[in-house]
Amino acid sequence: MRSALLRCSRRRASALIPNTVVPAAHVARALPVRRMATATAEVPQNKKTVPFTADRYPNLERDSRYKQLDAEDVAYFKSVISSPAGVITADNPEELDSFNEDWMRKYKGRSTLVLRPKTSAEVSAILRYCNEKSLAVVPQGGNTGLVGGSIPVHDEIVLSTQLLNQIRHFDEVSGILTAEAGCVLEVLDNWLAEKGYMMPLDLGAKGSCQIGGNVAANAGGLRLLRYGSLHGTVLSLEVVLADGTIMELGKPLRKDNTGYDLKQLFIGSEGTLGLITSVSILTPRRSKAVNVAVLGVESFEAVQETFKRAKGDLSEILSAFEFFDRQSFNLVLRHVQGAREPFDTQTPFYVLIETSGSNKDHDDEKLATFLESVLGDEVVADGVLAQDSTQAAAFWRMREGIPEACQTEGGNYKYDLSVPVPQLYSIVEKMREKLGSGGQYKEDGSGPVKNIIGFGHMGDGNLHLNITTSGYSEQLDKAIEPYVYEIVEENAGSISAEHGLGLMKAPYLSYSKSNEMIESMKRIKNVFDPKGILNPYKYFPTSK
Amino acid sequence: MRSALLRCSRRRASALIPNTVVPAAHVARALPVRRMATATAEVPQNKKTVPFTADRYPNLERDSRYKQLDAEDVAYFKSVISSPAGVITADNPEELDSFNEDWMRKYKGRSTLVLRPKTSAEVSAILRYCNEKSLAVVPQGGNTGLVGGSIPVHDEIVLSTQLLNQIRHFDEVSGILTAEAGCVLEVLDNWLAEKGYMMPLDLGAKGSCQIGGNVAANAGGLRLLRYGSLHGTVLSLEVVLADGTIMELGKPLRKDNTGYDLKQLFIGSEGTLGLITSVSILTPRRSKAVNVAVLGVESFEAVQETFKRAKGDLSEILSAFEFFDRQSFNLVLRHVQGAREPFDTQTPFYVLIETSGSNKDHDDEKLATFLESVLGDEVVADGVLAQDSTQAAAFWRMREGIPEACQTEGGNYKYDLSVPVPQLYSIVEKMREKLGSGGQYKEDGSGPVKNIIGFGHMGDGNLHLNITTSGYSEQLDKAIEPYVYEIVEENAGSISAEHGLGLMKAPYLSYSKSNEMIESMKRIKNVFDPKGILNPYKYFPTSK
Repeated sequence: MRSALLRCSRRRASALIPNTVVPAAHVARALPVRRMATATAEVPQNKKTVPFTADRYPNLERDSRYKQLDAEDVAYFKSVISSPAGVITADNPEELDSFNEDWMRKYKGRSTLVLRPKTSAEVSAILRYCNEKSLAVVPQGGNTGLVGGSIPVHDEIVLSTQLLNQIRHFDEVSGILTAEAGCVLEVLDNWLAEKGYMMPLDLGAKGSCQIGGNVAANAGGLRLLRYGSLHGTVLSLEVVLADGTIMELGKPLRKDNTGYDLKQLFIGSEGTLGLITSVSILTPRRSKAVNVAVLGVESFEAVQETFKRAKGDLSEILSAFEFFDRQSFNLVLRHVQGAREPFDTQTPFYVLIETSGSNKDHDDEKLATFLESVLGDEVVADGVLAQDSTQAAAFWRMREGIPEACQTEGGNYKYDLSVPVPQLYSIVEKMREKLGSGGQYKEDGSGPVKNIIGFGHMGDGNLHLNITTSGYSEQLDKAIEPYVYEIVEENAGSISAEHGLGLMKAPYLSYSKSNEMIESMKRIKNVFDPKGILNPYKYFPTSK
Repeated sequence: MRSALLRCSRRRASALIPNTVVPAAHVARALPVRRMATATAEVPQNKKTVPFTADRYPNLERDSRYKQLDAEDVAYFKSVISSPAGVITADNPEELDSFNEDWMRKYKGRSTLVLRPKTSAEVSAILRYCNEKSLAVVPQGGNTGLVGGSIPVHDEIVLSTQLLNQIRHFDEVSGILTAEAGCVLEVLDNWLAEKGYMMPLDLGAKGSCQIGGNVAANAGGLRLLRYGSLHGTVLSLEVVLADGTIMELGKPLRKDNTGYDLKQLFIGSEGTLGLITSVSILTPRRSKAVNVAVLGVESFEAVQETFKRAKGDLSEILSAFEFFDRQSFNLVLRHVQGAREPFDTQTPFYVLIETSGSNKDHDDEKLATFLESVLGDEVVADGVLAQDSTQAAAFWRMREGIPEACQTEGGNYKYDLSVPVPQLYSIVEKMREKLGSGGQYKEDGSGPVKNIIGFGHMGDGNLHLNITTSGYSEQLDKAIEPYVYEIVEENAGSISAEHGLGLMKAPYLSYSKSNEMIESMKRIKNVFDPKGILNPYKYFPTSK
């Protein structure tokens, strides 16, 4: 079967290596590499002071409804928080700073108090008091967000879930895990690995992000294609409302058809409705076998055809279908150490396919059959299968090195967009036309715009559009926005596929939601947080 | 491999047939048999008049806030509904009756008007008028519900989705289908079959139920184990609110992280928040191969171990894991034509396993390996694999004939419960103890309770508890309820796994939801339907 695959290849692949059977254990270890790769790359090397968000956005005035914190408040919080490390004040400015700034060093708040409760009862006591006194609060998980959602804008109290980190229950028969909000995603995944299970989501930030924050942000990530969104896998939540009420939203059951599924509102609510203190989630069995392949493809139409065929031939074992364009890969070749051409000849598009299943031989055979078919029918030009864990990691690096490579280029306008799959790449092409005809983007590289690239989770219709530039300017800002949001709206897309709204995208919400929808959202907010103490200045277009 | 399987069997199975490879097409055809099987059985053969719901439940007084319908109203509706068949009045009493009664003939309303709009704009015109005039409305889909949710209690106008039955869009790359609410589930599934796709849900009532009603009721069914709940697969909804506002709740995109996911509230809202007019849903590729096996198991602990192993060995191809106890099967043997013992020796429990995958050979091998393992380790006592479509259908009939067989016995108290898997069967045992010690249930069959049986979707923690009796009596009612709900509550279960609340379970909601939850639900209701015109008297414990 496998030699047939080689014969079917239209071109001789320079890196094509006969596909030998690799022990599952090796391949299973082949896939990390992703943890905070982008994060590290994006943190400015010469650490300059981050400007205060309130200074950068002077329109975001402090809302005078919120009380100023005083010593009496701090004394109260110290009386209800059991952990000695649970209250961080301005006496400890460096530690305080780490909660006031995001990891990208884009957003900075002026909070003078961080609270780290250890139990839901402590969270309840804190919020009840804040609600009574009208003290504004920012919930914060692992602080790995990309839109400034968990950073104070002014002097909001930071309510951190760091010490809410117990695993409450795991049922080995049903695979239902109940864990407190502050449990780190990777810690949970490793804990489940010993029991033969895995978390149904996987993110670059998994070494730092917390399950409560994942749910609050409705994180997507690398396993969504296979295991679906958190709206399907999260079975119940424990939350504390603004007034201190502890609510069990559902039960750790696979089925419960008794009334409105209120927990769903909290998935993706970004801390605006309540603090998630515990999550029950359905975890799948860990895959015994993992394969990774990279394909070279001549057109976006052919990428779509490849996706269709992968869904048919690989069906239940398909676990990732990522794509990137040649321009993306050029940046990887330029900036990512060890990156090299996979094939003798270049193609305009590349696809990375991952399969995960319970039987290595079966998966190998399915993948070989699929590759023979797409190569034989000339749907794809080239294909190569990872032969070991090192090569699998190198293949993932081709895709995952892109954000890092973009950051190294200079200025970088990043957009996380959701677009129906057939129109996905047209967004990149339209942006090239727009900036080409405007004179910002020139073939010879002499314009301020250097690269307009597209890559992302093809299987989820999730496009990452990156525009690298020689620097930032108001002129460029205006050439790109709101045009990028306009073409997303025209194509029935969404301005945020997986990063959320936070501070960054809140002003543009109307490109994805009707006025009626935004009005309903505000009324829902009012049901759970009538005084508006939770995560103010964000999420809503006018967020007073 | 397969002969090894036979050798591993601890007992000689009377019906054990060598597993030969069956063409996928045959097996694919092997699985229907389910359509409305229960329905047909439950309709009383001697058609008596169904009592009016309002007479049976005199506490459900007509709410005087609602206007009485008059000729002017009917004239208005005739003016906005385009289809000549779109308005059904008392001039046509027989047709009207079919909307006033449920298929089980348990509930009956006194509506004098049925409206069947053809477009969302017509729905909007209807609801705007009803809201202005305070006319109460019951949304109705295929009228296949089990809890009386879509039947008027008094004189509510029936708003039927029957004529909203267009398929709006299908994207063959992403598999995203957009269909109007009135599309029949089976029609959609057949339509998708031609394109190599399938609906992610499958119900006994699929020949009659409609996708809008499925979503409104948050239907579970037979594919939930594999494809998850509608909360994960439904991508967006078009709804018309009580005041006539047409809202697009989300977009037909796999990812959209912009604000509260309001569509989730409508999934399972049973028509109390708005009328669902269109559904976008992610459809999976149709499986090329299907296998069915039946196992005999000695204890419920061993059933759990079998489930754990099936998730490990069959993993991505496992599509159903149903269980039933010996008492259930005894009723099937007694009442279902053609049913016979699968094995020489009886066991206290039976398991039905279905696999669906893209490669028949691979699936056969995985299933054979699994069966060898569970038989070899004496986790299961006996096992038999269906060798053709007829046998697969016969195996499904062993499980699906149970409700029908129960109905034939006489009285039947039916409970659809969700319980954590390890405690699932203890509910049946506790009920036997309770009715045994109370003298209603006697070993020699001389008591009024004849059988207390448990079966259901083991993979989903969904227990169907049925108590067959010589008839109904207030004494029996009191012996069973609220005890059954109390033990479900004690075991952190839910009083409705998949049937919903409707009229039947609304009074018992507090066994599954806290007062705070119920209060929040009422406030959500108030956001979308402040005048309370949609589906009154149901869903909430006190529903004025």
